[in-house]
Amino acid sequence: MPPFHSLDDLVELVTTELARGDLSAVASALGSAPMPEVAVLLERLPAGDAGVAFRLLPKDEAMTVFERMDAPAQREVVAQLSDADVARVFSELDPDDRVALMDELPAKIAKRLIQDLPADERGGTAIILGYPVGSVGRRMTPDYVHVYPHERVGVALERIRQRGGDAETIYTIPVIDDERHLLGVVSLRELFFADPDDAVETHMATALYAHADDDAEVTARTLVDRGVLAMPIVDRESRLIGLLTSDDAHRMVEAARDEDEAHAGAAEPLRRPYLTTPVFAVVRSRIVWLFVLAVSAILTVSVLELFEATLEQQVALALFIPLLTGIGGNTGSQAATTVTRALAMGEVRPRNAWPVALKELRTGIVLGVTLGAVAFAIATTFYGIGIGTVIGLTLLSVCTISATVGGVMPLVAKSIRVDPAVFSTPFISTFCDATGLIVYFSIAKSVLGI
Amino acid sequence: MPPFHSLDDLVELVTTELARGDLSAVASALGSAPMPEVAVLLERLPAGDAGVAFRLLPKDEAMTVFERMDAPAQREVVAQLSDADVARVFSELDPDDRVALMDELPAKIAKRLIQDLPADERGGTAIILGYPVGSVGRRMTPDYVHVYPHERVGVALERIRQRGGDAETIYTIPVIDDERHLLGVVSLRELFFADPDDAVETHMATALYAHADDDAEVTARTLVDRGVLAMPIVDRESRLIGLLTSDDAHRMVEAARDEDEAHAGAAEPLRRPYLTTPVFAVVRSRIVWLFVLAVSAILTVSVLELFEATLEQQVALALFIPLLTGIGGNTGSQAATTVTRALAMGEVRPRNAWPVALKELRTGIVLGVTLGAVAFAIATTFYGIGIGTVIGLTLLSVCTISATVGGVMPLVAKSIRVDPAVFSTPFISTFCDATGLIVYFSIAKSVLGI
Repeated sequence: MPPFHSLDDLVELVTTELARGDLSAVASALGSAPMPEVAVLLERLPAGDAGVAFRLLPKDEAMTVFERMDAPAQREVVAQLSDADVARVFSELDPDDRVALMDELPAKIAKRLIQDLPADERGGTAIILGYPVGSVGRRMTPDYVHVYPHERVGVALERIRQRGGDAETIYTIPVIDDERHLLGVVSLRELFFADPDDAVETHMATALYAHADDDAEVTARTLVDRGVLAMPIVDRESRLIGLLTSDDAHRMVEAARDEDEAHAGAAEPLRRPYLTTPVFAVVRSRIVWLFVLAVSAILTVSVLELFEATLEQQVALALFIPLLTGIGGNTGSQAATTVTRALAMGEVRPRNAWPVALKELRTGIVLGVTLGAVAFAIATTFYGIGIGTVIGLTLLSVCTISATVGGVMPLVAKSIRVDPAVFSTPFISTFCDATGLIVYFSIAKSVLGI
Repeated sequence: MPPFHSLDDLVELVTTELARGDLSAVASALGSAPMPEVAVLLERLPAGDAGVAFRLLPKDEAMTVFERMDAPAQREVVAQLSDADVARVFSELDPDDRVALMDELPAKIAKRLIQDLPADERGGTAIILGYPVGSVGRRMTPDYVHVYPHERVGVALERIRQRGGDAETIYTIPVIDDERHLLGVVSLRELFFADPDDAVETHMATALYAHADDDAEVTARTLVDRGVLAMPIVDRESRLIGLLTSDDAHRMVEAARDEDEAHAGAAEPLRRPYLTTPVFAVVRSRIVWLFVLAVSAILTVSVLELFEATLEQQVALALFIPLLTGIGGNTGSQAATTVTRALAMGEVRPRNAWPVALKELRTGIVLGVTLGAVAFAIATTFYGIGIGTVIGLTLLSVCTISATVGGVMPLVAKSIRVDPAVFSTPFISTFCDATGLIVYFSIAKSVLGI
């Protein structure tokens, strides 16, 4: 077994040796680690160290490591390289990774880098740059191998061996006709085990494909959900123009989920590992959301002011405010979480608003009856039948309203093209709090006759 | 281009044709769809339909589709097949998928199925069953191909071609010595483009591997994060015993993330697509959490009772209760979300509790000072300097406490081996509400002198 460090040990070792200035120890540690680990290591090193470590990588591994790093880490490494080094790294990148990096760099630098590219490298990059930001055309690779349906398997394999060296993947191979129309796909595995004299088309399968104009994130999610290794990308005439690889698709889905998760927790995702992110960057990722929530929470103050006279007559009503708003908010966010997830998985669409509302209404009623009954029993025991009735009825109404609104809100957000996770959280918490309080005091006034 | 339906259309078409009883139309629709789509289709059909559709699949595709389906859908299909069909499906599964399905089936059925297996199939399954539930040994495939370091590439490729037909993947190939010790890995791609006369070891790379006893979910996440296609699994003597494939790893990570996401929204994940899940199953996924939250929210009622006299003297204090508990709860859950994510990514460990606490303390102070200053200005304008001071100081304290506790709580949960997402949500919301109210009324009493 070759010496193998856990990633934590490796990060610690490299950081220590860099601090001591022992670059040869760093180089040998990096050389013996599996390449995918090195990419993660560089992402995790403090800002200044990543550039130094990158330059210590074996030349033939450096590019593969660079392509696997995430965009912020790439940007940092680039910032620490000389202009000549940057130009070299840039020209050696795959066209799609080059475009992804360009989207991260200042426009001026990006433009100069593309002008310095050798002519034959500029072509593939230009094709990708022709598609709008956010489309899958922008994230596909134009470096792929293809085969023809009537070709013999042995001939096809030989051609892949000779010309496929630059292709980003050779495990999924598109099958096209003479006009480049996509006919299907065949896996390298199928070809590998096939009789060399078979025609390629006998091993061809129906392709899961996308159009270059399609949304990149949606396409990537489809690829990941279906568990395929690559997806052919076609133009409007169904002609093959590129491949989306599972590597790139997974990176996109991961980034999108990070963002969703952060938004569900009412924050922006951090661009760097938590422990190396400065306090002010953490504050920045949270403060905007807190202000939005705080401003909308002022609504609850205004609602309560409307009922100040009621409160003065029955101060005991104030005791239950956090309980009721808490349960309302939670019922709403449970519904929103479920529906947001179902939206992301493609199980539900905005046009399903009606069945979703109905299901959440019924769910809310069941939840409300259950919680309301228990709360009625407990509150009646301790505070009398009047307060008990108020609490029980309020919970029934609050659960029903919150579940329904919480369930429908992500669909509304989606249909007005706002990120459901971004829109739902502050809206639901404010809405549930405000309506909950109005319902509570209205019920209290009529039941208690105040 | 072969006829190709979008998944939505396909689900609708199959459901309609099944209702009309036109099984041949269903069979031809299923036959023309890409196979990964069919697996998702079956997961999405109403319970009774999935079994019928499965039996209409072409024989050679049925197993691949079955292996790609998630566990609840597999269980449903199995429930609708005859005993003989189940035995056939079971014996044709890969050993690791077989074990995964067994974990889902009632123990009695599982036991009978394994007894009915042909002897040669029982071996691989038994190896996997020897490892504890939750370990990666339980999820690896024992069907792999391997190569030796001194072997020539041409010889190795020929042997893979002859013996690799049953292997779950041939794209990542472990390199072992004569005692089966893992030496490294080589990709099929490398071998494919290599000179047939090269020794395999000249193309070997350091392997990213795991021990069979390692946690399955952690190992799967490492594989996905590092973007490799398969990971060798070794026993305690570093001997190769299986491979974890990226297919299986992605499915495990996806399931884990679904669970985390649901828990962060205070619910259990649904086992079926949202629209086909009955209302009572939705209620069941939420009611336990709501009760936990409701019971802990009773704490806020008790806290407020302590301050009932203060409230009676200054009813205006009640107006700000939802605002303050809302901001406190949000600050806490922002911190918890960030740290839970960092834990899942391996960026932070329980032993980092101190730097995490310090970072969140500082973040909380900055957030508190900012929000507190704004709130002080607004509240002073409308309610006078007394209330303004109370609100400002309370926000400062509440943000600081909530961020620190919210940040540390996931680490505490992890170190006592509780799921951070499960433990943090109810705890943080209750804790932040209760301490927030105590701080609020204590500050109010001393500032307003009541």
